[in-house]
Amino acid sequence: MTRVGVNGYGTIGKRVADAVAAQPDMELVGVTKTSPDYGAEAALRRGYDLYAALDDRAAAFEDAGLGVAGTLGDLLDAVDVVVDCAPSGVGERNRPTYEAHDTPAIYQGGEDAAIADASFNARASAEIRDADSLRVVSCNTTGLSRLLAPLDEAYGVEKARVTLVRRGGDPSETDRGPINDVVPDPATVPSHHGPDVNEILPDVSVDTAALKAPVTGMHTHSVNVTLEREPTTAEVRELLRGETRLFLIPEARHRRRRDLKDYASDLGRARGDFWENCVWEESISVEGRDLYLFQNVHQEADVVPENVDAIRELTTDVSREESMARTNEALGVGLDSLLSDGGSPRDQVAADD
Amino acid sequence: MTRVGVNGYGTIGKRVADAVAAQPDMELVGVTKTSPDYGAEAALRRGYDLYAALDDRAAAFEDAGLGVAGTLGDLLDAVDVVVDCAPSGVGERNRPTYEAHDTPAIYQGGEDAAIADASFNARASAEIRDADSLRVVSCNTTGLSRLLAPLDEAYGVEKARVTLVRRGGDPSETDRGPINDVVPDPATVPSHHGPDVNEILPDVSVDTAALKAPVTGMHTHSVNVTLEREPTTAEVRELLRGETRLFLIPEARHRRRRDLKDYASDLGRARGDFWENCVWEESISVEGRDLYLFQNVHQEADVVPENVDAIRELTTDVSREESMARTNEALGVGLDSLLSDGGSPRDQVAADD
Amino acid sequence: MTRVGVNGYGTIGKRVADAVAAQPDMELVGVTKTSPDYGAEAALRRGYDLYAALDDRAAAFEDAGLGVAGTLGDLLDAVDVVVDCAPSGVGERNRPTYEAHDTPAIYQGGEDAAIADASFNARASAEIRDADSLRVVSCNTTGLSRLLAPLDEAYGVEKARVTLVRRGGDPSETDRGPINDVVPDPATVPSHHGPDVNEILPDVSVDTAALKAPVTGMHTHSVNVTLEREPTTAEVRELLRGETRLFLIPEARHRRRRDLKDYASDLGRARGDFWENCVWEESISVEGRDLYLFQNVHQEADVVPENVDAIRELTTDVSREESMARTNEALGVGLDSLLSDGGSPRDQVAADD
Amino acid sequence: MTRVGVNGYGTIGKRVADAVAAQPDMELVGVTKTSPDYGAEAALRRGYDLYAALDDRAAAFEDAGLGVAGTLGDLLDAVDVVVDCAPSGVGERNRPTYEAHDTPAIYQGGEDAAIADASFNARASAEIRDADSLRVVSCNTTGLSRLLAPLDEAYGVEKARVTLVRRGGDPSETDRGPINDVVPDPATVPSHHGPDVNEILPDVSVDTAALKAPVTGMHTHSVNVTLEREPTTAEVRELLRGETRLFLIPEARHRRRRDLKDYASDLGRARGDFWENCVWEESISVEGRDLYLFQNVHQEADVVPENVDAIRELTTDVSREESMARTNEALGVGLDSLLSDGGSPRDQVAADD
Repeated sequence: MTRVGVNGYGTIGKRVADAVAAQPDMELVGVTKTSPDYGAEAALRRGYDLYAALDDRAAAFEDAGLGVAGTLGDLLDAVDVVVDCAPSGVGERNRPTYEAHDTPAIYQGGEDAAIADASFNARASAEIRDADSLRVVSCNTTGLSRLLAPLDEAYGVEKARVTLVRRGGDPSETDRGPINDVVPDPATVPSHHGPDVNEILPDVSVDTAALKAPVTGMHTHSVNVTLEREPTTAEVRELLRGETRLFLIPEARHRRRRDLKDYASDLGRARGDFWENCVWEESISVEGRDLYLFQNVHQEADVVPENVDAIRELTTDVSREESMARTNEALGVGLDSLLSDGGSPRDQVAADD
Repeated sequence: MTRVGVNGYGTIGKRVADAVAAQPDMELVGVTKTSPDYGAEAALRRGYDLYAALDDRAAAFEDAGLGVAGTLGDLLDAVDVVVDCAPSGVGERNRPTYEAHDTPAIYQGGEDAAIADASFNARASAEIRDADSLRVVSCNTTGLSRLLAPLDEAYGVEKARVTLVRRGGDPSETDRGPINDVVPDPATVPSHHGPDVNEILPDVSVDTAALKAPVTGMHTHSVNVTLEREPTTAEVRELLRGETRLFLIPEARHRRRRDLKDYASDLGRARGDFWENCVWEESISVEGRDLYLFQNVHQEADVVPENVDAIRELTTDVSREESMARTNEALGVGLDSLLSDGGSPRDQVAADD
Repeated sequence: MTRVGVNGYGTIGKRVADAVAAQPDMELVGVTKTSPDYGAEAALRRGYDLYAALDDRAAAFEDAGLGVAGTLGDLLDAVDVVVDCAPSGVGERNRPTYEAHDTPAIYQGGEDAAIADASFNARASAEIRDADSLRVVSCNTTGLSRLLAPLDEAYGVEKARVTLVRRGGDPSETDRGPINDVVPDPATVPSHHGPDVNEILPDVSVDTAALKAPVTGMHTHSVNVTLEREPTTAEVRELLRGETRLFLIPEARHRRRRDLKDYASDLGRARGDFWENCVWEESISVEGRDLYLFQNVHQEADVVPENVDAIRELTTDVSREESMARTNEALGVGLDSLLSDGGSPRDQVAADD
Repeated sequence: MTRVGVNGYGTIGKRVADAVAAQPDMELVGVTKTSPDYGAEAALRRGYDLYAALDDRAAAFEDAGLGVAGTLGDLLDAVDVVVDCAPSGVGERNRPTYEAHDTPAIYQGGEDAAIADASFNARASAEIRDADSLRVVSCNTTGLSRLLAPLDEAYGVEKARVTLVRRGGDPSETDRGPINDVVPDPATVPSHHGPDVNEILPDVSVDTAALKAPVTGMHTHSVNVTLEREPTTAEVRELLRGETRLFLIPEARHRRRRDLKDYASDLGRARGDFWENCVWEESISVEGRDLYLFQNVHQEADVVPENVDAIRELTTDVSREESMARTNEALGVGLDSLLSDGGSPRDQVAADD
């Protein structure tokens, strides 16, 4: 049983906390907050032990009527690994504390790659030995790694070129723009996303261009991969369908006005989270050696199963394959619609339960 | 045990189904769909019995790999009440079928008031006797009724004037606009929302003006009520705080970038649903006899507890008050944040569970 | 001939400059910019003399290839009045400079009312004597003053209650939000807009509530005015139709999907500017003593004719009525569509010119 | 002097009319509308002769107070060429009428390529002989043709891959979505835009993928071109800078929050129209043989100079080069900012006029 602490119960942290709590081989010892706000209240209502992230703020929690079990240091001393879910750049400031407590740490993709012994993606990372820290790559890099790894393994990737149309802000970030504009962000091309992918897949050549759009829900990728071989469209669809961390959105005739998060909610996922990349099945198309497709990445959620696998990577001898299977099982990752074209229903759903 | 059927497992229907299934005194016998699409698949995955809404489409379900337990007629014969959750206007077409099967029916607010024996709001409706059908009023009318009833009871309402800034489409309706525009909708004033409120509160004078905005999440109401008396701002806040179907969003210093649905999700609500009106506590303000406030209404969800209470109204002798208490208990309606100003925490949440 | 300088060639400043240049009794001596950017380039291309707003930046203009005629001080010495169009709050910092040069000044609505001898709206302000400075009220306050003045004069205003749905940012401000949200802004009610109106109409009781929406084009007002008398709807429409600074958008059957700025462009207005309030004619509705209507205010433009009239107010003996007529004539203010209901076409437009 | 008629005074038609009227070698004889609405009023206010597009509606114009000079047939008999600016697909219905009157016709890109003798782009089309009709390609295809032609001429294009992020609706189309979503449109890849480009450049291999975003102003293209040679980034920037129908947006340090249409308005362009592609100069980047860049296309305007050149192509012996020069001169096409990096100011703008 791996004992886990989450430092920073925010957008990512709260999801990682839930995911850890759902693993049979992990125990969520506690989560931290800097202030006694609604996130802190929500953590307590969920039954999580709350720790004050900053020593000098601990009293404020009590004053606000929220009980804490200790401070960050107390939490670090009680866990086998800490998952740092602080805002981008703050992980670097937290690192000395983790090291002082000798606590192995997992960082998020907003930190520089140099912060950890290795960057990590469960599907795509090569074997990692003797690491005391890992950095789970960003939502977009996670999405690209999961897609490019099987393509490179099966066909060889000569060059990947991806346009990322990113959401301007998360649903709860109501003050971020843009309004009524699609903005190159950055204006320079390529953006940093390609080099990020190379932290995971060093031999895959990737160029990325990024735009920001007035949406909040998900990032959308327009993907081109020039392959070394020429598979058929059907072959590529079959290959990707076999990936548990990719969900193929079946063709339009089975779905009308569809919101992916709405679908996820209908299937019982908390917050309508989509941990898998959502690939539009009908967009998968091979022209010569050029593969094209569209995929969506849920920026609040897709890194969550990766964090869970990173915990096992750091603290156990469980194989990558086994870890992914356990994570998928516990969270229900690996959607497969009954209505997919060409897919045989894996579980026949009857009228009665 | 009341046996319930839901005709139309859509945006409202799927939520009503879940709410009914959560009631200890109700049994969800089944739900219907017209086509074997993702909504139908989701119903089956949730363990609900699926019925074909249209007789001549039943075979299509089997062909698509989704088992049905029968047709609408079969469902009607097996229940004590049917909740019609078809698109606006379709309820009228369904009515003859319900009458032919002698099945008491509950309709939604998109139908004309004349469709049912009475319109219904749990908090605000006067006593209803001998009804065989009820019409739960629309999301906006529900929101206004819940607010105006206590105000009228406590102070008397001379005139209410409400500007409704409505969402252009639900999150899953990606083809509806507007983009980058706030549009009077309708251009004529007053809009129909006032008269709708009079179906519930016939003696309250209400004028409404409606706009449509490029948002998907919730409707926002800018409310003015000229009262017959002059309460203080604190008195009004206290009055509204006591209403279980109103949630007072505490003052800004406890909350930063906050998305109400995100908060609801954090508290464990499926789909981030908000069944309560969300009233900005700090907006509640009395100037002379004029009360002002802002409230949000979650159009996909606020009518759901009303439908549950309507079921008891139609099929049992349970008092309105008792029904609301049971519904609230089963669904967790009646949020009260630990961080509210002036509110004492009802349940002290400890650091340990 | 009044010699005018514009300090700050920005969103408002560039429009004021064009408007001044169009007046037969005014001369635009020059405009200022703080940096040699595209606004500065545009001023030069338009033929305006450019002055460096900050002395120590003058050289930067030459380096960038943009010739300047001097600094702010030089401009102040060459004009009879300066129109301060700096960002909100900066006018206060500029004031000492204007006073040091003995230059009468006009400020914008973003400055505190105390900055000037009086606040100003051409239609609604009472007579102003012996002022050396004026403050043209904000876009919203301008829009409300123009509407409430004739109503108060004709019927008496008992109480005005206005919900302002404001644009999140101007079209060129692509980094401002919100996205997908309508946000109370401020969350407290009433907002400051009512008191602003009282700087112009001290005896009119006004309560305002403000929201921010993800749009860029215009602000939308949902207006209620409780009058002291009971005019008919037709009477109110007639009264408002007679106001040159109000444009009544005729009923829907004459217009389909219509963008007001597009319409303004079609009529030859630069930038698609709407100097007039745009009142939806069909929304004008009287219920008892309650008047309701919707109006849009173009935040980039409606204060412009007010600035022109303020110049005459400060520097000449021209009567308010005469000034408004000159301003309207020179700019083409006072739209009257040929397709208005109840309006007789003022100029019969023939097939041939 | 070529006599021109515009059939359909809408979004494109009104701009084509203005552009034709500005040409010294063309005469705009008249424009048509189907109904006496605000567009019709605007045409008359601008001094254009108005014709009823449909014979049986002519009386309605007079009834509405708008004088017409005749019907479509009358206009066709009075012109040397008609520019069809009807909604997509309607041009095909109009064609027989043009042919019956023996009037050479220019169609827009929304019609099938087969409607005309040839598709047309001034910069990129090969020589066209003996045509009686032309089809000006769509806004996106126009934008792509202008960019790919010089690249193919200078370096050879091996493969172009473009992601088009299109606006959901024009500013005046307030009922079109999406809201808060970026939607593959179509979901299949490649989209039709590539084949459209091949109507102009048959030998250039182009794959396109298209998305729809909740914006109204412009389309944004994320472009990759694999070239046959390896120019430097500077060489490509220089090449593109020399194209009159491409505008290079200089680097960010000269511009802050910038709206391109706002900039166009500041430079005196009616409606803030951008006839040129807007290429982000700093996005132009060559990696090996892969060129990347972002460009915006103003969907309401970029086809306008193309229509003017198409008129000369059809009705005169003027060379393509000469026509483009005349069109550019008359409309002011070919923006070149004084603040461009590496560009020498073509016209030194002085402080005085």
